[in-house]
Amino acid sequence: MKALVYGGPGQKSWTEVPDPVIQHPTDVIVKMQATTICGTDLHILKGDVPEVTAGRILGHEGIGVITEVGSGVTQLGVGDRVILSCVSACGMCSNCRIGLRSHCLDPEGMAGIGWIFGYMIDGTQAEYVRVPFAENSVYPIPEGVSDAEAVLLSDILPTGFEIGVQYGQVKPGDVVAVVGAGPVGLSAVMTAQLYGPSRVIAIDLDDARLARAKGFGASDTVNSGQADWKQQVLALTDGAGVDVAIEAVGTPHTFTMAVDLVRPGGHVANIGVHGKPVELALNELWIRNIDISMGLVNTDTLGMLLKLVAQHRLPVDKFVTHRFTFDNILEAYDVFGNAAEHDALKVLIHQ
Amino acid sequence: MKALVYGGPGQKSWTEVPDPVIQHPTDVIVKMQATTICGTDLHILKGDVPEVTAGRILGHEGIGVITEVGSGVTQLGVGDRVILSCVSACGMCSNCRIGLRSHCLDPEGMAGIGWIFGYMIDGTQAEYVRVPFAENSVYPIPEGVSDAEAVLLSDILPTGFEIGVQYGQVKPGDVVAVVGAGPVGLSAVMTAQLYGPSRVIAIDLDDARLARAKGFGASDTVNSGQADWKQQVLALTDGAGVDVAIEAVGTPHTFTMAVDLVRPGGHVANIGVHGKPVELALNELWIRNIDISMGLVNTDTLGMLLKLVAQHRLPVDKFVTHRFTFDNILEAYDVFGNAAEHDALKVLIHQ
Amino acid sequence: MKALVYGGPGQKSWTEVPDPVIQHPTDVIVKMQATTICGTDLHILKGDVPEVTAGRILGHEGIGVITEVGSGVTQLGVGDRVILSCVSACGMCSNCRIGLRSHCLDPEGMAGIGWIFGYMIDGTQAEYVRVPFAENSVYPIPEGVSDAEAVLLSDILPTGFEIGVQYGQVKPGDVVAVVGAGPVGLSAVMTAQLYGPSRVIAIDLDDARLARAKGFGASDTVNSGQADWKQQVLALTDGAGVDVAIEAVGTPHTFTMAVDLVRPGGHVANIGVHGKPVELALNELWIRNIDISMGLVNTDTLGMLLKLVAQHRLPVDKFVTHRFTFDNILEAYDVFGNAAEHDALKVLIHQ
Amino acid sequence: MKALVYGGPGQKSWTEVPDPVIQHPTDVIVKMQATTICGTDLHILKGDVPEVTAGRILGHEGIGVITEVGSGVTQLGVGDRVILSCVSACGMCSNCRIGLRSHCLDPEGMAGIGWIFGYMIDGTQAEYVRVPFAENSVYPIPEGVSDAEAVLLSDILPTGFEIGVQYGQVKPGDVVAVVGAGPVGLSAVMTAQLYGPSRVIAIDLDDARLARAKGFGASDTVNSGQADWKQQVLALTDGAGVDVAIEAVGTPHTFTMAVDLVRPGGHVANIGVHGKPVELALNELWIRNIDISMGLVNTDTLGMLLKLVAQHRLPVDKFVTHRFTFDNILEAYDVFGNAAEHDALKVLIHQ
Repeated sequence: MKALVYGGPGQKSWTEVPDPVIQHPTDVIVKMQATTICGTDLHILKGDVPEVTAGRILGHEGIGVITEVGSGVTQLGVGDRVILSCVSACGMCSNCRIGLRSHCLDPEGMAGIGWIFGYMIDGTQAEYVRVPFAENSVYPIPEGVSDAEAVLLSDILPTGFEIGVQYGQVKPGDVVAVVGAGPVGLSAVMTAQLYGPSRVIAIDLDDARLARAKGFGASDTVNSGQADWKQQVLALTDGAGVDVAIEAVGTPHTFTMAVDLVRPGGHVANIGVHGKPVELALNELWIRNIDISMGLVNTDTLGMLLKLVAQHRLPVDKFVTHRFTFDNILEAYDVFGNAAEHDALKVLIHQ
Repeated sequence: MKALVYGGPGQKSWTEVPDPVIQHPTDVIVKMQATTICGTDLHILKGDVPEVTAGRILGHEGIGVITEVGSGVTQLGVGDRVILSCVSACGMCSNCRIGLRSHCLDPEGMAGIGWIFGYMIDGTQAEYVRVPFAENSVYPIPEGVSDAEAVLLSDILPTGFEIGVQYGQVKPGDVVAVVGAGPVGLSAVMTAQLYGPSRVIAIDLDDARLARAKGFGASDTVNSGQADWKQQVLALTDGAGVDVAIEAVGTPHTFTMAVDLVRPGGHVANIGVHGKPVELALNELWIRNIDISMGLVNTDTLGMLLKLVAQHRLPVDKFVTHRFTFDNILEAYDVFGNAAEHDALKVLIHQ
Repeated sequence: MKALVYGGPGQKSWTEVPDPVIQHPTDVIVKMQATTICGTDLHILKGDVPEVTAGRILGHEGIGVITEVGSGVTQLGVGDRVILSCVSACGMCSNCRIGLRSHCLDPEGMAGIGWIFGYMIDGTQAEYVRVPFAENSVYPIPEGVSDAEAVLLSDILPTGFEIGVQYGQVKPGDVVAVVGAGPVGLSAVMTAQLYGPSRVIAIDLDDARLARAKGFGASDTVNSGQADWKQQVLALTDGAGVDVAIEAVGTPHTFTMAVDLVRPGGHVANIGVHGKPVELALNELWIRNIDISMGLVNTDTLGMLLKLVAQHRLPVDKFVTHRFTFDNILEAYDVFGNAAEHDALKVLIHQ
Repeated sequence: MKALVYGGPGQKSWTEVPDPVIQHPTDVIVKMQATTICGTDLHILKGDVPEVTAGRILGHEGIGVITEVGSGVTQLGVGDRVILSCVSACGMCSNCRIGLRSHCLDPEGMAGIGWIFGYMIDGTQAEYVRVPFAENSVYPIPEGVSDAEAVLLSDILPTGFEIGVQYGQVKPGDVVAVVGAGPVGLSAVMTAQLYGPSRVIAIDLDDARLARAKGFGASDTVNSGQADWKQQVLALTDGAGVDVAIEAVGTPHTFTMAVDLVRPGGHVANIGVHGKPVELALNELWIRNIDISMGLVNTDTLGMLLKLVAQHRLPVDKFVTHRFTFDNILEAYDVFGNAAEHDALKVLIHQ
């Protein structure tokens, strides 16, 4: 089969590799119908994630059809069209049992992290993929859900919802600020609607992204390049700050922006992947009764979000701005890697 | 009457001052029966809290008997023996209505902070005190509760419970670590028992304090002066870390200790009053699914804790190590200000 | 002033009565701008509520402008345009402090019930009303909120939301069934949207009401007069039942319908006011892991719902189907008392 | 091997039967070390549970050592000493994924009920047992936990805790009443301590059982044979009723007792297995803001309770009043079937 293979920092190729095979009784093999690219793939390609070694097939998102099942698989069958969760979870360990699938103690992957596709094992930017712990890690796709809709449920929509909206404890009537209007920020903007906020304020430096945020459900937008950006946000509250501030960039500056916006009693939910420590002004914050959350997605809401997508309650296909076939995956990387230039959000790569 | 008056940095006196009078219809006047000293009082005396000006009567904890009620007070009467909450709350503002009494928008005090006794208005280290918003800020003391028990409910016990145990989301079976075995740390140790933990580990540099922690409910103790202190704590878990780490000191080092101890999916609850920012290693933590809470006590559990004290379910009188009369309050300050030397925890100052 | 006075079973009149006066320091007087009629008022008029005696002014919903404040009122002023909560709450008693305002231990009213307007004290179908515990019981109306919107926040919208949606623990992705598409059922249909359900199924015997339910947010409707109504509902689920069934009628039959629809692990939320006991098939239900809730509204979400109305996130004015002036209040009673004939939902009675 | 085989109503024998064999890749075989008898077993023997047919091996509680594992089992091994959960759960179906293991959609057993041992498949009163979905249904026993302690974790302790204490939402400071001081009622009494109640009141007709309840953690006891039993209970509250009433008998009368005891805003948790419908006075209750829960245990707290038992925080061995070897299991049935006469609580049947 062909796959997108990492060749070391700066190197990738769409090349012929051996087909995957069942290794454990709980595995299935999936023929991929669609995949996409995540910012993390770009980080790996830059060499920022040294655990990933040359020869690894990248990608942790996608959908496909099951072509083979292991001997221990009883609830899935050949021909099932499924979404692959970006997190592989055994469903049995002490972490899985409490819903912390992101930290599955799976002995196959890296100890204690459920994200292994395109990282510790071969990923989804390929014609075929071996899926470990398949019965806990894939989701049959109901009638009427398109490839473009389904592929966004592998990672980005659950991430915005679980790590942004749920960890941020958004509740009816809340004013929510989302710092960063890229794909994951917009997934938080869209899914925040599931808890009835009074306002969702998108904050970014790029007016084009802010304009797009309106279509994803933002009630208000603020360009943080303006000197009075903070006053603009506070003017949309009762003056005390937002109830929930969601960080969806991953820099010390944007994290501090989120912390500075939140009201006493409010929540800061960090989604961003950070490369550096941040300074936390506990000397001012200790008295403010806020909390700060962070984490890797568990995808335990994937099935629920899929139900809403099937009911057309979440216009998730808006995320896909560009489409490519597998043979043009390198071009897809170019577009996604220069997203601003192409006004790209998510790219769909399909058969 | 006589009161402990702040005279500017380093200066205090037990001196004659005018009696307080009713200023608002919701005020009451209380004749104090007992008070105590808090670490915050020492900070003020050092001049660390410049909002406190010379002439202010210190103290925010205490019990007494009501001697006069304002015209709008209907549920309290002269002669009632009551606990004064360290937080004054109007009970009507938008923050009070959501239980965030620590940030009462009370127009009398400092905007947005419910703690005003001994800070923005005259405090409780006095023979008489004016209590604003009395019906929301004092609690009648049931039969059989001693002065020593009751006075600890003004601040320290609710603080350890609300900001440590409840914000830390302790639940049955948890392993809880408390960094710092001073009064507030021990109040977290004691009240953590209300959620059925499997272990409560007290961590401190002082073996005498650790020995005392056992009497307050610690199942295990670790001296953090030892090189392998972290390994000692982890050995008391399944190896992944504690479920809840409570910071009860207020320094960057102890905060980082707490963060380092917590397992994926766990909670860090900061109680400590910090004077400096801390560095938060978000580059490592973003993937760990932890949350970090902090705040000023709301005392919304004061009534519940009082019920447990009345039922002898919390041996709270253990906190009082020394007793003084009002006339000897300066000596009480000496003992409390040199707590280690005197093996002091809380000092009771009574009529 | 003039007011709608109950004259004993079957008797009412719009008649001259003395103006109300301040009785307690926490009272205010409100000049009413708009009120409405509730099904409970009809029950009282039938003589079903013997605690209500002849001479009582009816009504527990409405908005108006404050004309006088008691000496203990500090946060409200003459001229404030406010919503009156149907529940009067002191804000200080042990029940109010835990958010159970519906059971305020207010010594003025009937022991332990916060609903007193038009029941234990004179109500809101009058030109002027005395409002006890005003600072905890009225809500200033923001700019841009109409009378018709505001008046629905006194009772019906919070009731559908708190007792139906929140007690029913509706969560994103849920399938919700609402039995009864009258005013309170429709308020549950509308406010269920605040928790992102996948479907809201309205169930009623009247096709006209079901057609209207669609406009309030019902995704599906089922006429329960049809023999296969239950199969129709189950066909909209995965076959196991709905996640939340909300009863909004108040008869044994409709209550049993709700119980029969709910899936294992689901919730039955009773809003209906019942006149008879019901039979609960615990012999079948004990193993089904459901819960059943019920209660009187606390209106602790009134302020939050008002914020959403001000943001035009809840099209609450759809409830008002007929409008009358105070002078025509008897005609308003006729229309509301024969709601089916007039296709009436809520009637607005204004100056 | 030998096993306790049901022979139809009124008939049972300890007799030779074929050894169980692995049927599915997720099965294990366990050599039983200890089992016990549940009230449900007595019901089956009376013929009250017609789904159970002659030839079925009874029992759903027990511990043992794994002697064989299926090909799909990766986390358990031969020689592991384990507790068998009374509920068999696949861990993968939509119900298992939301923690509703009691309603596992396991295709092996009765549709939608996770309890299958001694009911739909052969049970644990045998020398060997086949355990389906073993990795989700057995728990390795830590060092230092005795057979008598471990066997109580199969069913009774999780049932009292999950269905009584957790569904009843016991919280610190609560007054809890437990109606019925048999094994499951006492498990609720004991585990209620994990949420810091101020009082736990045991209610029963039998003074001997009430005396025993004190040893399990009851702070107070009331004999419900006395005319003023309700007044006695209310006198232990503030007069408004208990916060949580747990029903642990299973009759209409005891259910109504629980409902009558609960305060506005409180919880009724039904654990009892009922044979008849009950009358629920919704005409009085609709306004009381209570909720009523019920259900079959999920055993999702088994691991946590085991941790507490291993730490000697729950004196669970107090439940075992009589011990027998497997060869004397018929005698064990006699004693347990006449519990009052023998002052029996739980009987341990071991190798």
